[in-house]
Amino acid sequence: MAGNSFGRILRLTSYGESHGPGLGGVLDGCPAGLPLGEEDLQRELDLRKPGQGATATKRKESDTVRILSGVFQGLTTGTPIAFHIANEDQRSRDYGNLAQVFRPGHADWGFFKKFHGIRDYRGGGRSSGRETVARVAAGAIAKKLLATRGIRIVAGAVELGGIAVPPAAYDLDAALSRPFFAAADSVVPLWEERVATARAAGDTLGGVVQVVARNVPAGLGEPCFDKLDARLAYALMGVGAVKAVEVGEGFAAARLTGSQNNDPMLPGGRFASNHAGGILGGISSGQDIVLRVGVKPIASIAQEQRTIDVHDQPATVRIGGRHDLAAIPRIVPVLTAMTALVLADALLLQERMAVLPVPDGVDWF
Amino acid sequence: MAGNSFGRILRLTSYGESHGPGLGGVLDGCPAGLPLGEEDLQRELDLRKPGQGATATKRKESDTVRILSGVFQGLTTGTPIAFHIANEDQRSRDYGNLAQVFRPGHADWGFFKKFHGIRDYRGGGRSSGRETVARVAAGAIAKKLLATRGIRIVAGAVELGGIAVPPAAYDLDAALSRPFFAAADSVVPLWEERVATARAAGDTLGGVVQVVARNVPAGLGEPCFDKLDARLAYALMGVGAVKAVEVGEGFAAARLTGSQNNDPMLPGGRFASNHAGGILGGISSGQDIVLRVGVKPIASIAQEQRTIDVHDQPATVRIGGRHDLAAIPRIVPVLTAMTALVLADALLLQERMAVLPVPDGVDWF
Amino acid sequence: MAGNSFGRILRLTSYGESHGPGLGGVLDGCPAGLPLGEEDLQRELDLRKPGQGATATKRKESDTVRILSGVFQGLTTGTPIAFHIANEDQRSRDYGNLAQVFRPGHADWGFFKKFHGIRDYRGGGRSSGRETVARVAAGAIAKKLLATRGIRIVAGAVELGGIAVPPAAYDLDAALSRPFFAAADSVVPLWEERVATARAAGDTLGGVVQVVARNVPAGLGEPCFDKLDARLAYALMGVGAVKAVEVGEGFAAARLTGSQNNDPMLPGGRFASNHAGGILGGISSGQDIVLRVGVKPIASIAQEQRTIDVHDQPATVRIGGRHDLAAIPRIVPVLTAMTALVLADALLLQERMAVLPVPDGVDWF
Amino acid sequence: MAGNSFGRILRLTSYGESHGPGLGGVLDGCPAGLPLGEEDLQRELDLRKPGQGATATKRKESDTVRILSGVFQGLTTGTPIAFHIANEDQRSRDYGNLAQVFRPGHADWGFFKKFHGIRDYRGGGRSSGRETVARVAAGAIAKKLLATRGIRIVAGAVELGGIAVPPAAYDLDAALSRPFFAAADSVVPLWEERVATARAAGDTLGGVVQVVARNVPAGLGEPCFDKLDARLAYALMGVGAVKAVEVGEGFAAARLTGSQNNDPMLPGGRFASNHAGGILGGISSGQDIVLRVGVKPIASIAQEQRTIDVHDQPATVRIGGRHDLAAIPRIVPVLTAMTALVLADALLLQERMAVLPVPDGVDWF
Repeated sequence: MAGNSFGRILRLTSYGESHGPGLGGVLDGCPAGLPLGEEDLQRELDLRKPGQGATATKRKESDTVRILSGVFQGLTTGTPIAFHIANEDQRSRDYGNLAQVFRPGHADWGFFKKFHGIRDYRGGGRSSGRETVARVAAGAIAKKLLATRGIRIVAGAVELGGIAVPPAAYDLDAALSRPFFAAADSVVPLWEERVATARAAGDTLGGVVQVVARNVPAGLGEPCFDKLDARLAYALMGVGAVKAVEVGEGFAAARLTGSQNNDPMLPGGRFASNHAGGILGGISSGQDIVLRVGVKPIASIAQEQRTIDVHDQPATVRIGGRHDLAAIPRIVPVLTAMTALVLADALLLQERMAVLPVPDGVDWF
Repeated sequence: MAGNSFGRILRLTSYGESHGPGLGGVLDGCPAGLPLGEEDLQRELDLRKPGQGATATKRKESDTVRILSGVFQGLTTGTPIAFHIANEDQRSRDYGNLAQVFRPGHADWGFFKKFHGIRDYRGGGRSSGRETVARVAAGAIAKKLLATRGIRIVAGAVELGGIAVPPAAYDLDAALSRPFFAAADSVVPLWEERVATARAAGDTLGGVVQVVARNVPAGLGEPCFDKLDARLAYALMGVGAVKAVEVGEGFAAARLTGSQNNDPMLPGGRFASNHAGGILGGISSGQDIVLRVGVKPIASIAQEQRTIDVHDQPATVRIGGRHDLAAIPRIVPVLTAMTALVLADALLLQERMAVLPVPDGVDWF
Repeated sequence: MAGNSFGRILRLTSYGESHGPGLGGVLDGCPAGLPLGEEDLQRELDLRKPGQGATATKRKESDTVRILSGVFQGLTTGTPIAFHIANEDQRSRDYGNLAQVFRPGHADWGFFKKFHGIRDYRGGGRSSGRETVARVAAGAIAKKLLATRGIRIVAGAVELGGIAVPPAAYDLDAALSRPFFAAADSVVPLWEERVATARAAGDTLGGVVQVVARNVPAGLGEPCFDKLDARLAYALMGVGAVKAVEVGEGFAAARLTGSQNNDPMLPGGRFASNHAGGILGGISSGQDIVLRVGVKPIASIAQEQRTIDVHDQPATVRIGGRHDLAAIPRIVPVLTAMTALVLADALLLQERMAVLPVPDGVDWF
Repeated sequence: MAGNSFGRILRLTSYGESHGPGLGGVLDGCPAGLPLGEEDLQRELDLRKPGQGATATKRKESDTVRILSGVFQGLTTGTPIAFHIANEDQRSRDYGNLAQVFRPGHADWGFFKKFHGIRDYRGGGRSSGRETVARVAAGAIAKKLLATRGIRIVAGAVELGGIAVPPAAYDLDAALSRPFFAAADSVVPLWEERVATARAAGDTLGGVVQVVARNVPAGLGEPCFDKLDARLAYALMGVGAVKAVEVGEGFAAARLTGSQNNDPMLPGGRFASNHAGGILGGISSGQDIVLRVGVKPIASIAQEQRTIDVHDQPATVRIGGRHDLAAIPRIVPVLTAMTALVLADALLLQERMAVLPVPDGVDWF
């Protein structure tokens, strides 16, 4: 109820603050028999690790993960998988002055109001982006689970600081090997220049990420409130800095007519197009699931900003510390992790959805 | 788990098919003492009733609601509020021929795969837009609950068939009194013309709806997975035909810098701007909550479409029956109902959020 | 959260008051393909119908059930199954005088405190035993589901008014055909005499019911908090008037030694005894599941009782109206319904509990 | 869904195996502002620590707990409280021979069937009684929370090996200071003798524990399925070795008449007796909540027992290792922990149960 758990059959409960002893989670509901080691989680964690690339914070964290339960002889046992990532580089002194003021664009004010003044203000405490390590670690397990059914998730940045990759150039499969996890090579030098300009101005940038899930079987998702796209929007909008989510054509579908937007069906469960983004009526169609996520610029800027303090007095704040210049690229593995958690959960729920044999004499068609 | 319930403290469970005996729901968790009558639900249901306006189906349904429990002497009692809307005009014969084919753009194929061929194909069965009557009826209760705290939700159509209302002209407060529930008067004749053209072509239209919640207190929403915007995206993307959800600047935020996008704070818990759309770090800030929803064109078009039948053979389908030409305007009360259910649920969770008195000698600030 | 839903995969939400328009429920998560008709629910409802037998109320209710959704062409479709039972014989005038006083042994006081004075006092409102019609109707569906896997639940009264059936004489399979749903013929005349004495004294009786589930496969139930016996105790203790629940030897196990109480295992997954009552470590063992439930005497007695009124003044109350003299036998189908809901839910959760193939080279044994 | 979480508003998720790296949990939903330190958890953990007293295992575990999140400057912050207890004395070699056979009376067989042969057999893995450290640690937090409202839970052993404490001699307040956490001094020498006899015979003992919650306000618990006693039975029956749960008179109520069992009400919300055990219609009445729990003898006995192995062949097993002779006394703090978790959860849920002001002119009484 307090919002630190996600999922139904496969359910992650996460914990931890930016400057406490560490962060982690418990993933419950993973089936027995999945080969799993700490290296599976570490690989994904390394993708979001701070200190890499042009847009990154200089905070040093090895983000070494330890599995505490649920794995025996290299296989999951069906019991909860707990994992922990210790905090190492907690320079709380950087944040002492932030105990008194609310940083614009941050959760400080909301936490202050919600918990009546009680909060761990060091580095944003629970509201820090560092919270996403638990999502990424759990997502790594979900990805391995999906892989046993041949499902694969790819993603890449398609826009940064207003400079977009032309859709025709999207090559998401290789994105993780590019700077910015960019969807195409061509955009990289332009983005580097854009980042340099922003950094010089003490400013930050936003962008857009595209996520695609391949080989998802038809039939995932529940009618009504738990449509597959509803669950995905829930998961993705719940990642800090995300302000928009689209499925398939998204807002562009609002400008198409029905005859343009409908995807004609072909024998073999194929479709002549994929405007729907792989989800029809909230249920996967068997086509690629296509998601697009709008990410706001990092709120921690080096410029002086107007704000108030905890005594409701005007104040100014200039945020030092070690901050990313954009949520891209580090948000990319977080978004694929959340997508994986939703899909694995929907898959396990569907696999349990027993359909009884239809009695003889019933003619459905 | 099967996706027919929504909410945590205030929880709606809905049921019903387009051509079964009727539809309805059970709203659990409503506090005792709320004045409530069937007329409160009816008023909202009448806003989405079929058969009204230029874009509407000709199906005749009075959509008369009956409250079955949870209200005594005109007040809610804290026990579940059940309500039922009988189906009246169920012309199943219109749909008999659809038992064999999958309508493009519809949930038919997904249901077929999900439930292994078992489905109530009449009018889409459970996947019919008619399912939303339960949302609207429950949302009416949530709206009354919110009104006791002064919270009010307004909404209107801001784009139809590619023709947008200029943001400067938005007047959502009067939208329900305009054709199309349009956000401004000026656009109505243009939309009427656009609709006439589409109808003549046997085609359908999509659009965009803006929803604004006023007077929401700061502090609603939970950290991490149950951010207020995550719950709203979950609720809105779960409405049929919705393909995109934005909060505040939405995708436009991706093109702003941090210094442009951050909203400076002013004494009194006020803000100099509202790029965030009233939600920071997933928690309400006290500003207006601003949401924008992209709605695809109605999938049921009068043109002949290519598809397959249940035996995987090529087929064509031309959908007769009585269908809306656009989800706008009837989707508007559905979207405000879902927004109300999310906010009322978050409010009840937050209210009396027991914060224990901070012991003497603890200096938080 | 408000306690009107039960179950995880197969989830019942119930509603209704003793003297409102009616009672009913929504059963979500039932797989598609189960043959189901109103007669399946009616058969079970008739077993708990008032007005039958020596201990029964004279309230006349046909308890006719109507299915409102989720069934098409005689089969469940996987969508929510809603059902409604209209109240017919609501003599509210009998209860008007009870608006002011708290009946001893009833939920009146608790509701008054919980909902700050707001309550439907007519016949106990939501706290009436009449609420169990929804449990029985939903339980009928669960029983049909279990029957498709060969699982069958039997039950009977084994004690009434302090007169017990000797365990050696238990014959639960025929209990439903006997007066009092007694576990043996021999006890019936003794119970009739006991009932006559109590009735003459204006008093009421309690008793004990035994429930046995046959042919339950090994492996149902979850480790830790959701042990199968924990879920069963939850379900059974949640039925009004139940004050005690035992599994297998129950309290008697506390007086056995480990060597007496352990059930030796035999090849074929058989056991030499069943002290455990079919559940070991919270997981079904494949043996009969054996439950025993202690039921308090009906609180509504015809004698004058001391109490207080809503203004905290001393009062006396003599309860007229039409009340059962014992919860037995009508509670028996309620207890089997709850047992069926727990088992069907556990079964659906366990079925297809995806165990991935163990990789080569792993030696588990 | 996989049964490793418990609670609604205050929700514990636990993890860990007997011989893995450690055990722990995440408690979500604890309000901000509760003074909390590791010593609060340690005090309760020490009560269940192995290696103490006549009935105890010789396994050496310091059970040192570490809080990993959710506490700042000595107060809870409203974010999840994670805690971890490392395993120290993991003599896995003691258990190697148990990989092949199913110990009678244990969860081995159920896990084997449930997870299709995949299990951590070392010390019972997840099914070990050692799992209860997470319950006790979380329960310590719940107890502190309850203490802020003046609620206190006491408990003691009232029967061991068939030797009962006379009810008139119950003195639960001092139980934790006695051997066996006995409810009276007088029984201690008799129990010591009984234990010595059982140990000499290589056998084990069961017993009965009484738990009483004092100063619980009226109004806790939800109507219908989530009655307070239903939640308590769920919590207590979910503790390993528990086979029976009673509330108030329990099974004895089945032998009373209504006039004997009803508790007359007195002004001031008092009662003339407490046969009900503090719960009426599933809602707390304001009286002491009285629970009694039947505990089976420890299944690990030193005698040779018949069983089968994983290849379904007959086998014998004699369990060495370091095992308790009775679940008493170490189960006592586990039972109070679970009681505390249920009550704190119900309290937080009730405190959120907003009752709106009744409009003027409505006459409820």
